[in-house]
Amino acid sequence: MTRRYCFGKPIDTEAVLNKPECSPREEFPVKRENGRFFFPLTEEDIVYGLGENVRGINKRGWIYESMCADDGVHGEDKVSLYGAHNFFLISGERHLGVFWDTPGKVTFDVGYTRYDLLEVRLEELDVDCYLIEGDSPDAVVEEFRGLIGRSYIPPLWAFGYGQSRWSYMTSEEVREVARKHREHRIPLDSIYLDIDYMERYKDFTVDGERFGDFEELVREMDEEHIHLVPIIDAGVKIEEGYEVYEEGKEKGYFCKDEQGEDFVVGVWPGKCHFPDMLDEEAGAWFGNQYQKLLDMGIDGFWNDMNEPAIFYSEKHMKEVFDRIGEFRTKNLDVNSYFEFTGMVAGIANNQEDYKSFYHNYQGRRIRHDQVHNIFGYYMTRRASEAFDRLRPDQRVLLYSRSSYVGMHRYGGIWQGDNLGWWSHLALNIKMMPSLNMCGFLYTGADIGGFGSNTTEDLMIRWLSFAIFTPLMRNHSAMGTRKQEVYQFERQEAMGNIIKIRYQLLPYLYSEFMKAALGNRMMFRPLGFLYGKDSLARRVEDQLMVGESIMIAPVYEQNALGRTVYIPERMKLLRFHQGEPSFGQMYEKGYHYVEMPLGDVCIFLRENYILPLSRGGEHVEAVDWQDLTLYSFGEQVKPYGYYSDDGVSKDYDLEKNVLLLAV
Amino acid sequence: MTRRYCFGKPIDTEAVLNKPECSPREEFPVKRENGRFFFPLTEEDIVYGLGENVRGINKRGWIYESMCADDGVHGEDKVSLYGAHNFFLISGERHLGVFWDTPGKVTFDVGYTRYDLLEVRLEELDVDCYLIEGDSPDAVVEEFRGLIGRSYIPPLWAFGYGQSRWSYMTSEEVREVARKHREHRIPLDSIYLDIDYMERYKDFTVDGERFGDFEELVREMDEEHIHLVPIIDAGVKIEEGYEVYEEGKEKGYFCKDEQGEDFVVGVWPGKCHFPDMLDEEAGAWFGNQYQKLLDMGIDGFWNDMNEPAIFYSEKHMKEVFDRIGEFRTKNLDVNSYFEFTGMVAGIANNQEDYKSFYHNYQGRRIRHDQVHNIFGYYMTRRASEAFDRLRPDQRVLLYSRSSYVGMHRYGGIWQGDNLGWWSHLALNIKMMPSLNMCGFLYTGADIGGFGSNTTEDLMIRWLSFAIFTPLMRNHSAMGTRKQEVYQFERQEAMGNIIKIRYQLLPYLYSEFMKAALGNRMMFRPLGFLYGKDSLARRVEDQLMVGESIMIAPVYEQNALGRTVYIPERMKLLRFHQGEPSFGQMYEKGYHYVEMPLGDVCIFLRENYILPLSRGGEHVEAVDWQDLTLYSFGEQVKPYGYYSDDGVSKDYDLEKNVLLLAV
Repeated sequence: MTRRYCFGKPIDTEAVLNKPECSPREEFPVKRENGRFFFPLTEEDIVYGLGENVRGINKRGWIYESMCADDGVHGEDKVSLYGAHNFFLISGERHLGVFWDTPGKVTFDVGYTRYDLLEVRLEELDVDCYLIEGDSPDAVVEEFRGLIGRSYIPPLWAFGYGQSRWSYMTSEEVREVARKHREHRIPLDSIYLDIDYMERYKDFTVDGERFGDFEELVREMDEEHIHLVPIIDAGVKIEEGYEVYEEGKEKGYFCKDEQGEDFVVGVWPGKCHFPDMLDEEAGAWFGNQYQKLLDMGIDGFWNDMNEPAIFYSEKHMKEVFDRIGEFRTKNLDVNSYFEFTGMVAGIANNQEDYKSFYHNYQGRRIRHDQVHNIFGYYMTRRASEAFDRLRPDQRVLLYSRSSYVGMHRYGGIWQGDNLGWWSHLALNIKMMPSLNMCGFLYTGADIGGFGSNTTEDLMIRWLSFAIFTPLMRNHSAMGTRKQEVYQFERQEAMGNIIKIRYQLLPYLYSEFMKAALGNRMMFRPLGFLYGKDSLARRVEDQLMVGESIMIAPVYEQNALGRTVYIPERMKLLRFHQGEPSFGQMYEKGYHYVEMPLGDVCIFLRENYILPLSRGGEHVEAVDWQDLTLYSFGEQVKPYGYYSDDGVSKDYDLEKNVLLLAV
Repeated sequence: MTRRYCFGKPIDTEAVLNKPECSPREEFPVKRENGRFFFPLTEEDIVYGLGENVRGINKRGWIYESMCADDGVHGEDKVSLYGAHNFFLISGERHLGVFWDTPGKVTFDVGYTRYDLLEVRLEELDVDCYLIEGDSPDAVVEEFRGLIGRSYIPPLWAFGYGQSRWSYMTSEEVREVARKHREHRIPLDSIYLDIDYMERYKDFTVDGERFGDFEELVREMDEEHIHLVPIIDAGVKIEEGYEVYEEGKEKGYFCKDEQGEDFVVGVWPGKCHFPDMLDEEAGAWFGNQYQKLLDMGIDGFWNDMNEPAIFYSEKHMKEVFDRIGEFRTKNLDVNSYFEFTGMVAGIANNQEDYKSFYHNYQGRRIRHDQVHNIFGYYMTRRASEAFDRLRPDQRVLLYSRSSYVGMHRYGGIWQGDNLGWWSHLALNIKMMPSLNMCGFLYTGADIGGFGSNTTEDLMIRWLSFAIFTPLMRNHSAMGTRKQEVYQFERQEAMGNIIKIRYQLLPYLYSEFMKAALGNRMMFRPLGFLYGKDSLARRVEDQLMVGESIMIAPVYEQNALGRTVYIPERMKLLRFHQGEPSFGQMYEKGYHYVEMPLGDVCIFLRENYILPLSRGGEHVEAVDWQDLTLYSFGEQVKPYGYYSDDGVSKDYDLEKNVLLLAV
């Protein structure tokens, strides 16, 4: 049951497709006071949700702010990451989902100030609040997802393994990555192009020197069944003669400052303008630019820096340089020294800058900070809408760094600039169900970590988890240890793990599609399925993946096994050197399970089927008919097996679902 | 069996007291090549040691650098924290301890580059290397500790609970902290004074306005059985008329730059000089300064910023300001922007600055970087030596942020500027045995975390662990949530936990003293005691504390219990609302144990005794005779109970040890 309560005059984010009528505000069932709402929490309540965020599956005990932020250090003290996902679910005796639809900042104090209280704070009381009650967490999520519409579905090849680096600098480097994977028989479906493929970081250009044979390269890779996926940034370089800049300027498509001048920010290329992604005409124009790359044979993109990230604004930078002079002559003590260094460190992503430019949205001029959280959403939406025009019958891979609920219809997300930390592998695990709740099904984190040096064992453990995530990409930053699989001594073990991904593909794609088409989650906390089991509800580091299996990843260095909570009878399917075989049967309870480095352990539910293919070196090489069905039990349920051509958009054809039985 | 191998002409750190003769270098048993040494690691080898560092009890899989660093963000990617503890122990089929005695930088690649290799790299091949073989990890540690001499022993009151904040700004604030603890019946033995008690951050001064009645305050607190513990910094403010500065300058006691001028650095007070702690005369002079505070009734100190931390050097800061001008006129792109912000962020603790000043050490002029790691050690040693002169019969509390092996004889350490992160609680747990190995017994971390906002549940869980650590102090930084126990709703639960500390004191002090006098560890990994048990060897989050008990702290938010590995039959002693009672008996294996917030669980070994007192509101109120002896089993061993007056230094008197039997 959904009720919508309307406060003030919210800016319509278009997150919700079919809005119910507003209920009388006086019926709003919890205490409120101006822009503050107070939800009582009982001892046993778990608070799920909030999408992309730090900390646990259970969000209790911290403050979170919806304020999309470009911040690569996902420490426990952060309150915002790249996305704004204003949905939470209080689950205990009752199950209540709440969605706060507003494009501005929202604060969620989830039992941080007071353990027994969840307080929601709004800057301005302009919000549509949806209260969704249901008999189970699953029921609440399904109803919420029904409101916000079907999740984005990528092309099938995007479920293959992808290799990325900031950056492969030349066509030759890209060829080498492809060659080495094929040589070592490490499966691969995509190679990512980070910012250096462009000419001086100009969107929709390709560097003529380092990538002079770009179209040839795309064709060659295509023959190898490898897709090139270029990055697109939010900022457009100010450079005379640069077509996108000139046209955007002439037509007035860029965000304006208070005086109506094009707002100048510094990002990768130096000084830039932001196209007004929110404006329909400007946005459509920006979306159309992708055609340049589509026409070169590209069929996948990642949208970056669209929180939007701001290294500096021209105006603020000038002020900083002016003030630096004052510090020069001082005897800098604790106060003035930290003021000086803090001022410089605070140039980037400065909140004042977000109050200094404007959008045209739905016929109104709106200051950026009031719609901050939907900028990345609209950038991605504009691209998606352009693809619908330009490639109406073909799926295009598209995902974004920044997002808001609603964007899940237009693209996936990757989980941003994480680090090569074991705790960020743990975060990746915990974030999957939180994101799924909010509609983001096509997602994954940078395997091995983007920033800071990874380790070989972390790579192996991360791969062992990431083979389950729809987006499976190895990505790392300039200056860090190279982390393509073939850089490591134990590359064979890593290759074997990636091969398991391709054996799992029929199951993973099937479960992904059923989740997308049925508004369900693919990754669920144990508490969703075993809600009466108090031990199952507490588990933070195991996940149900689809209907048949549970996983319990290792995310601690030097661990050779771990304790696993078995919520019902399950059988271990162990992949050793990439080959599956049944292991021990486990009864309900805690068990210590040996998990040596390189082994992948799947826990199969009784009477459920896990179909496995024989694998392949890329998605097209997988035989979707030649399946082995793993199951045990007396009353094995038939498995709803979804498959399609992986390219077209006829998702709902009846023939796409087969029942497999043993 | 210890062998000493001498390479080059190492600078004598005086870490080792009784040096064996040098063995022939050609007998050195592992491969070496210039300044690189290669220790093979087998699959099952665990590498213990390296003292204060990030990551696990088992150090495999990362690079560590001994290069004392002022860095408050103890992320997994850090390679150095505040101390340099060049001892590791490879434990598998054989047990080999290795100590690298050199005051310069040492790099330990513990299976990071190659899993099966531990590589040690030195900048210059000037080092005394001690190889220690033994039949068990305990035997190796005991022999190593025998070489480096008896660990520092603090006064008994320093085992009580301490409350700190950067900073209590006035006498009145200090009084309020004392009053609130006593009012709420939260035990307390000390209140810490951070930098703001001083007049403009000048060492050995007390601010006349905010602490005008300082001696009266000390006396008042003394009546309440509360000790005030002021901080001392490494840098001496340049200020005319400031006695310490004037005298140090006149006598030439400050570190010099290359031209022989007093080297100028910026720290808290602005421009400062570093006293040359390494120089015997200058060091003795610096040590004597503590008398000013001793004479005011102070009997405890913490030495800070002695890596030494450098906000900036005068010289480098000038260069930075000069270069900033160049950036002003540029169109800052990714390269120049990060160059600019990186330059400013890199002003602090700049490696070039450490190459720009000099010491007189053992009759030679030595550039700082070559003796960097013993600066904090010598600062603390100079204080300790002064106490021996000034208060020969009385123990004085003394601990340091920076340290090197050898300093363990003169003071303890706190584990530096951690954060209010759950992972830093985990780090605190893992660091205890690593530090104990290296001689540091009197240690603990800032409860609740120093930087970033803590949470109420983190406070409760951290207290539940910290009641076992010899140094038990709640400390937090300016700008963070206040975290004195009485700031929280569940202060009663927290108070009850602190009360358990006082019940444990007879056991903890006894075990501490036996460890100190017997060159043993107080906190041991399970692998030390149960080396044949492969599951026990893997455990990273449980510790043996002394001879009788094991602990298994909860360090995950929202957890209400955890799995515990029981390595031999043990009985649970559960403290509920501060009251102990026996719970379940556990047999060897993994078990899930309920641990609701506020309960403290101790696992008692069969046939061992845990003596508990009835507690008290401060150490002096504890009755050391009125003990309850907890034990179970058929052949309970008598307990060696150590007690003394807690003040004098007659540690070895026979009467200090009693045998308690049930």
